[in-house]
Amino acid sequence: MRWIAEVHVSLRPGIADPEGQTIGSALRSLGYASVDEVRSGKLIRIGFEAAGPDEAERAVGDMCRRLLANPVMEIATWDVRADEQQDAEGVNP
Amino acid sequence: MRWIAEVHVSLRPGIADPEGQTIGSALRSLGYASVDEVRSGKLIRIGFEAAGPDEAERAVGDMCRRLLANPVMEIATWDVRADEQQDAEGVNP
Repeated sequence: MRWIAEVHVSLRPGIADPEGQTIGSALRSLGYASVDEVRSGKLIRIGFEAAGPDEAERAVGDMCRRLLANPVMEIATWDVRADEQQDAEGVNP
Repeated sequence: MRWIAEVHVSLRPGIADPEGQTIGSALRSLGYASVDEVRSGKLIRIGFEAAGPDEAERAVGDMCRRLLANPVMEIATWDVRADEQQDAEGVNP
């Protein structure tokens, strides 16, 4: 069975985020004066095969620990869902 | 009222994603042989003030169009929620 994992990797609170600060400055200079905090992160979407939901969840946790996130500086969170519509990927919102 | 927007910026289908391909190769070489597609993107979390939910939603849409996403190559999607627990940001999952 095919699964889709959406992994969000963000910097831990307190870790300097120059990209987020730059985006925040740019938004304020565009007129969004109330923007007070911007944090940037990564979004990784993974399609893979697993026998069941528990196995899929475990595999994604392992991927995060082994490759996707640096646990010293980053936090990874993820959602795993069954890929029911493989061909819906081409649809643009 | 303070709002938190989570903006997901991902490459449009069909746009080459070398970072995603590299992550996919790395995952396969770590033993996750069934990984068949990886797409990378950006996650941007913005704290800002707006009078109500409609205004907040509109502000984030404008920010995406004006700065955060390149509409030729990227798709932006977002969730906006009221920031009910400003001090919960320090909590690590």
